Amino acid sequence: MSPDAPAADALDTGLLDPGRAGSAVEAATGDTAFLAALLEAEAALTLAQADLGLAPGEAARAVAEAADPARFDARDLALRARGGGNPVIPLVADLTAAVAAEHAPYVHRGATSQDIMDTAAMLVAKRALEPVLADLASTVRALADLAARHRATPMAGRTLTQQAVPTTFGLKAAGWRSLAAAAERRLAAARATLPVQLGGAAGTMAAFVEYADGDPGTGPMLLTAYARRTGLAEPRLPWHVLRAPVADLGTALAFTAGALGKVAADVLVLSRTEIGEVAEGSGGGSSAMPHKSNPVRATLIAAAARRLPALASVLLSALACEDERPAGAWHAEWQTLREALRVAGGAAREAAELTAGLRVDPERMARNLALTGGRVTAERITSALSPVVGRGRAKELLAEASRDAAEEGLPLAEALSRLPELSELSRGDLDGLTDPAAYLGSAPALVDRALAPEGPRDR
Amino acid sequence: MSPDAPAADALDTGLLDPGRAGSAVEAATGDTAFLAALLEAEAALTLAQADLGLAPGEAARAVAEAADPARFDARDLALRARGGGNPVIPLVADLTAAVAAEHAPYVHRGATSQDIMDTAAMLVAKRALEPVLADLASTVRALADLAARHRATPMAGRTLTQQAVPTTFGLKAAGWRSLAAAAERRLAAARATLPVQLGGAAGTMAAFVEYADGDPGTGPMLLTAYARRTGLAEPRLPWHVLRAPVADLGTALAFTAGALGKVAADVLVLSRTEIGEVAEGSGGGSSAMPHKSNPVRATLIAAAARRLPALASVLLSALACEDERPAGAWHAEWQTLREALRVAGGAAREAAELTAGLRVDPERMARNLALTGGRVTAERITSALSPVVGRGRAKELLAEASRDAAEEGLPLAEALSRLPELSELSRGDLDGLTDPAAYLGSAPALVDRALAPEGPRDR
Amino acid sequence: MSPDAPAADALDTGLLDPGRAGSAVEAATGDTAFLAALLEAEAALTLAQADLGLAPGEAARAVAEAADPARFDARDLALRARGGGNPVIPLVADLTAAVAAEHAPYVHRGATSQDIMDTAAMLVAKRALEPVLADLASTVRALADLAARHRATPMAGRTLTQQAVPTTFGLKAAGWRSLAAAAERRLAAARATLPVQLGGAAGTMAAFVEYADGDPGTGPMLLTAYARRTGLAEPRLPWHVLRAPVADLGTALAFTAGALGKVAADVLVLSRTEIGEVAEGSGGGSSAMPHKSNPVRATLIAAAARRLPALASVLLSALACEDERPAGAWHAEWQTLREALRVAGGAAREAAELTAGLRVDPERMARNLALTGGRVTAERITSALSPVVGRGRAKELLAEASRDAAEEGLPLAEALSRLPELSELSRGDLDGLTDPAAYLGSAPALVDRALAPEGPRDR
Amino acid sequence: MSPDAPAADALDTGLLDPGRAGSAVEAATGDTAFLAALLEAEAALTLAQADLGLAPGEAARAVAEAADPARFDARDLALRARGGGNPVIPLVADLTAAVAAEHAPYVHRGATSQDIMDTAAMLVAKRALEPVLADLASTVRALADLAARHRATPMAGRTLTQQAVPTTFGLKAAGWRSLAAAAERRLAAARATLPVQLGGAAGTMAAFVEYADGDPGTGPMLLTAYARRTGLAEPRLPWHVLRAPVADLGTALAFTAGALGKVAADVLVLSRTEIGEVAEGSGGGSSAMPHKSNPVRATLIAAAARRLPALASVLLSALACEDERPAGAWHAEWQTLREALRVAGGAAREAAELTAGLRVDPERMARNLALTGGRVTAERITSALSPVVGRGRAKELLAEASRDAAEEGLPLAEALSRLPELSELSRGDLDGLTDPAAYLGSAPALVDRALAPEGPRDR
Repeated sequence: MSPDAPAADALDTGLLDPGRAGSAVEAATGDTAFLAALLEAEAALTLAQADLGLAPGEAARAVAEAADPARFDARDLALRARGGGNPVIPLVADLTAAVAAEHAPYVHRGATSQDIMDTAAMLVAKRALEPVLADLASTVRALADLAARHRATPMAGRTLTQQAVPTTFGLKAAGWRSLAAAAERRLAAARATLPVQLGGAAGTMAAFVEYADGDPGTGPMLLTAYARRTGLAEPRLPWHVLRAPVADLGTALAFTAGALGKVAADVLVLSRTEIGEVAEGSGGGSSAMPHKSNPVRATLIAAAARRLPALASVLLSALACEDERPAGAWHAEWQTLREALRVAGGAAREAAELTAGLRVDPERMARNLALTGGRVTAERITSALSPVVGRGRAKELLAEASRDAAEEGLPLAEALSRLPELSELSRGDLDGLTDPAAYLGSAPALVDRALAPEGPRDR
Repeated sequence: MSPDAPAADALDTGLLDPGRAGSAVEAATGDTAFLAALLEAEAALTLAQADLGLAPGEAARAVAEAADPARFDARDLALRARGGGNPVIPLVADLTAAVAAEHAPYVHRGATSQDIMDTAAMLVAKRALEPVLADLASTVRALADLAARHRATPMAGRTLTQQAVPTTFGLKAAGWRSLAAAAERRLAAARATLPVQLGGAAGTMAAFVEYADGDPGTGPMLLTAYARRTGLAEPRLPWHVLRAPVADLGTALAFTAGALGKVAADVLVLSRTEIGEVAEGSGGGSSAMPHKSNPVRATLIAAAARRLPALASVLLSALACEDERPAGAWHAEWQTLREALRVAGGAAREAAELTAGLRVDPERMARNLALTGGRVTAERITSALSPVVGRGRAKELLAEASRDAAEEGLPLAEALSRLPELSELSRGDLDGLTDPAAYLGSAPALVDRALAPEGPRDR
Repeated sequence: MSPDAPAADALDTGLLDPGRAGSAVEAATGDTAFLAALLEAEAALTLAQADLGLAPGEAARAVAEAADPARFDARDLALRARGGGNPVIPLVADLTAAVAAEHAPYVHRGATSQDIMDTAAMLVAKRALEPVLADLASTVRALADLAARHRATPMAGRTLTQQAVPTTFGLKAAGWRSLAAAAERRLAAARATLPVQLGGAAGTMAAFVEYADGDPGTGPMLLTAYARRTGLAEPRLPWHVLRAPVADLGTALAFTAGALGKVAADVLVLSRTEIGEVAEGSGGGSSAMPHKSNPVRATLIAAAARRLPALASVLLSALACEDERPAGAWHAEWQTLREALRVAGGAAREAAELTAGLRVDPERMARNLALTGGRVTAERITSALSPVVGRGRAKELLAEASRDAAEEGLPLAEALSRLPELSELSRGDLDGLTDPAAYLGSAPALVDRALAPEGPRDR
Repeated sequence: MSPDAPAADALDTGLLDPGRAGSAVEAATGDTAFLAALLEAEAALTLAQADLGLAPGEAARAVAEAADPARFDARDLALRARGGGNPVIPLVADLTAAVAAEHAPYVHRGATSQDIMDTAAMLVAKRALEPVLADLASTVRALADLAARHRATPMAGRTLTQQAVPTTFGLKAAGWRSLAAAAERRLAAARATLPVQLGGAAGTMAAFVEYADGDPGTGPMLLTAYARRTGLAEPRLPWHVLRAPVADLGTALAFTAGALGKVAADVLVLSRTEIGEVAEGSGGGSSAMPHKSNPVRATLIAAAARRLPALASVLLSALACEDERPAGAWHAEWQTLREALRVAGGAAREAAELTAGLRVDPERMARNLALTGGRVTAERITSALSPVVGRGRAKELLAEASRDAAEEGLPLAEALSRLPELSELSRGDLDGLTDPAAYLGSAPALVDRALAPEGPRDR
């Protein structure tokens, strides 16, 4: 086997993941945080047993006191974890050694490693989601502001990369807001139901029953007590192999990255040199080109949106696991869930900063909208013409006029004014009909609808 | 370019997907069903406009009448779809040609291809989910029956492939039931909110406003009317690029396959020749070995559970799309969503059949549980011994006794009876303590809790 | 269980997959083609046995004659496949019934379903890749042409969405060519080694040995004979559970879609209304906007590139399978591999058409390059200034001048001419230094290098 | 935005990834190693320029000396990386500050961040693969040993979880070996071609040309020089957006995890309590059940095999990237590639240990093979009977006899001896025919073939 490495070289401090480096979610999901949560899960377990009279209060206090992360070494546990395949085994050994002999029997009593790992993961997730939700909330607010402020700011609506018809920047921002809010709802719902884990060796809670002189009601009672002590939700059943909580969390995180990824995708398009309709508040510099202002926040969000669906697929795959504890599916979740939290959380931080500082250039939007000389209103003219000449003929005429206008560099109105079929319309009429800013449809009304407190159910 | 192929060779009739072949969901998602939904979406659009006075009722009736799937050729549309990249373009041409000239302007009026594609996809999904939900409901019932019937049937609880401590088959089935019920809830929730799509060229509904003499309230009103006509939910905003409905549906389907995949994974283990604790009602034959009875239903479910997370990841990735209609992300959804519906739906059919017919062999379970001569109760003995000799020593003693028992082929009770530390316990006591069936913990109580109508929130 | 559906509704004729509809690869992978390949695999198996004297030549001829796809019904086989989980079981029944009684024992003799399924899949893949490789070859040629023709055509090099420094369209096309050629090499290599499958019930070829009076050398000899009869490669071992061929094929297909996806991603950017540097030969129409010319080919390729990595991940996952035939991993491959072939093959067809017809607009490239008034050459000026004022100061000066130029709408040369540090340079010098077309670096030389027959190994 | 976290909490020291903790590949891919590689890439760049006379040798030596990882702080760089989106920007600032003013202009001269990031990633990958390849080589050797030693050790061949016909453990091990060797070949091939990256701001190497007085041949020459200085392969073109090297590496790593995952999947099955045919050399303990011996190595490999296909799919997706540097696709690669290296590398370490210590129990294999009373030879008897009574009738008879034998708990030979059709065969004949150990087919011969130095091409 290849030789072991010294500890210091093993660190991942975020050098390859600037989107998460230094974020609150990074800290909340680090090994230090995880170690603390593992110890908290152990302490709460003994306390919950004391609550039910299954352990002496003194022992519980002793365990809780010993469960001080500062006394434990995460890297050392990581290395020793390899033997049995999880870090709880060496942790229990160390924790047991850290309490007085008379309390030692109450350490990890009746539990299995998975009880502690899963409970710790849920504690970590619950805390890690706090700053993520805060960032999403501020993103939602910033986007609502943008939507309201620009409810009627005309810009080109683009489909399949081509200018299609006008829309407003407010409608675009309202759509972004609705996705960010949907992500916030999904994550908040997932967070509210993160359950405590407790099942014992194979999910029957048999050891606990044993300590309670065989009372089979002990299992459910202990689930309640443990949930109370940890602040996590109480599950119906031990969920060692019923992985809905992890799968749901994974998909909510992937949804979040995807929702923010929509914002990023649009910002990336709109800040292109040739488009320039928005710019990040503080674009990133370039090591070689001092004039560039890169959309760095959007870039890092876009990277997150590319990574999370794959991570979520690993967590969804883990639902299909065998036995009362699977050999692999569970182990595959640990680092994957951590990465998912970090990547989504990093994206939320970027999104909050991006949306708070986004600079919008309505004037450039107007200029871009004018690029086609009014051809983005072709749909409107077709509608106006259809009753007169039939829709087929109307489309033909517009296609022809659009082509002429494009080729000769004329406004569409001018090309249209040559058409005998439109001889009744004055050039002023035609200018009005081909004014993009006058063809916004329900865009402003849809913004109002999107921002209204009530309305059709928001998914 | 490579030459075109004749139509007949292109068929996919399910030859490579026995898990879906002949299922109701397959039919509900076939090209015929999709074509019908596309036409229904077109008809409902004109009818909704007529409801608001934006189109003559006569035209709407004419369009609805012309929108008869029997008159259209899906394969021909598929081939012509390539030109513009979607099948709505040729469909509109054919539908327009199928109505009288005076009604032609009302065909597809104001809409964009995506309005029709997305609405049709939602109609298809809504219908396709009906049999899927029915299969899940019957799976849930069958599993509840199994759980109740076997609430106290002892079997080995297995962790990391090894017999750990006893559990009951009822608890295993109760866990299966809870996952299947969770899948049912998620799919039902997704189905209930499948929204109609309507936005026009770039989501501003501008053409509709035009037909309503510029009334910007037209957009929202038409969303309401169109939702009513199609029976789909009314969205807050056109969702051309707000793909939550598709992403959610994809993850609910992946959850479903994963949930059923857990059942399949266990059935596959338990029906192994060397374990034989369950068997499928009607195992599949083998072309070479007449004696084999393969767990075919579980196999096909397991295959589905391997495919769906990847499909869901494509749909989650599509959230991060650019502009008012993306060039690729949307197109990637179509076949992916269909496959996801089919694969999950096929798995639900298999699960319904599997769970309805599952044969359980409590006697074999008992025999397997006895294989270790009581060593599966080691945890219990350790607990009993710990107060006497300390937990560390207790573990050592048990490890030793277990090893001896294993090596000499003795019951654990016998090996234990040699220990001076246990001299106070009679052989009868030891036999009782090492009787797996007497160490079920809260398993039966947990079954009751899982099946109770009320209790901690079921995720 | 949900009721069965009538056959006709089950068809997938490509309505949701315009990128593949009507393609040669679609036909080559349809149920008809697969059925033919299954029958061919059966026929070749008997013929190979006859070659070794293990079956009468007459029987082999009878089986080969009976194995006429026209006599079999793919849909009926699909429906009956469900029982045993694969279509070979009913196929063997039908094929056996189709030969005279004395030849019946030689049908499928000694084989297992997987021998036939896998061999058929390899036959299908081999044929399906033929048009795909042809499309890739013509794509490579078209791109080489574009690269050569535009080796020195200046355009903006864009990084993180911003114009960075100039490049040439030829260099971009040369990069596209190198990826397309890499895809071609990978697919050709995968195709050349697609192996025949033959192992019998559990990969020991025991039944064949039995028919050869126990000669254990029969297995290897029959592998050779079967490979010769099918034209597939001879494997070292039966590969029922050694799935390298399928995993490799899946990754080569995903590579192909990704490689073409790079071309598509660039075409989508460059054909944006505001950029307009390239256009598809025949853009797709829009159902609502007659003036639009959508980059449909690129869109469909982009959709393929989004779907294939997920499909490949399913095939890679299937490597980790249990036993001598896994319960699920193998079954998950069938439809996945077919979709992968179709999606990649469709993308290759689109790419061939796209690259053959791509219209390039050097004049627009030049205009876009001028948009920044020379600021895309900032890097060059920084280099020129650095020796004089130090790199840090040079960067500051350029940043300042670039900002001034941008804000005042001046050419960079003008802003630079105000700098005392540059007082020695004439305005003509500065105009030359800031001329994007004069700052192409090694771009043309790199094109030559890329197109040269020899050079550093092309991956 | 959520507040920043203190550095120490951010560490990932492997607590959640025991499969990699302490491995050589973990160290080789840590931030320390990456930082060193970044600095090495910078130093080599200046040295290569000096080689071509584009920089003073003294400056190159100064840069090389300053590029000492001990002087830099990875965490600090990670935090500052966020501004511009990559760690090279702050690194260049620090490195520039670390050299004397007169050498400063030669730091990072002409390069772009991606040149350094990609080159560093390739250096890291090249080194990280060294121990991985060593572990694979020792795995291959151990498996060859097992295959040779057990070439004729009978065991049950299992298909779809059921005992099918006999095979040998040697054949199984030979298959494992062939997959491990295939992984080794793929990784070695990928490693041998890992290319240096150098393109400058947009891949034209324009700045380098500038420094060489406009000689356009400078780019290619510098590619050669840089490749020589780093020991990496020389690419045909700068590959900023031609991501074949990363995609290929990702798929090779996923292949590796899958290949080893096959071994793990089988070990997990075979070490089940009820099967017990193999055991890991040193099974992992359990925190609750002292008697258990968990297959921990196989479990951790299985977890790796579940994670890698998803990571590979992210890398494959990154092929389809836009422009001369994409906004997101590139950034998504960094951490993903690191995780892929670590997870696959960890799996290789586990596999080396697993295969070196695997304990095989031929006696238990024989006992399990006897479990069905000879029914695993049903295929053989069917063959023997077919010429006499026809295959259909033979299958019926065997199915009947198998059922009887199973139900009455008789050896198949006994049930067969009752059949009038078999009255000519003595009980001894029947015992021989139904002896699993006498029905191994070509298994031993196939082992020889697999292990032979020559033979049909090994994929």
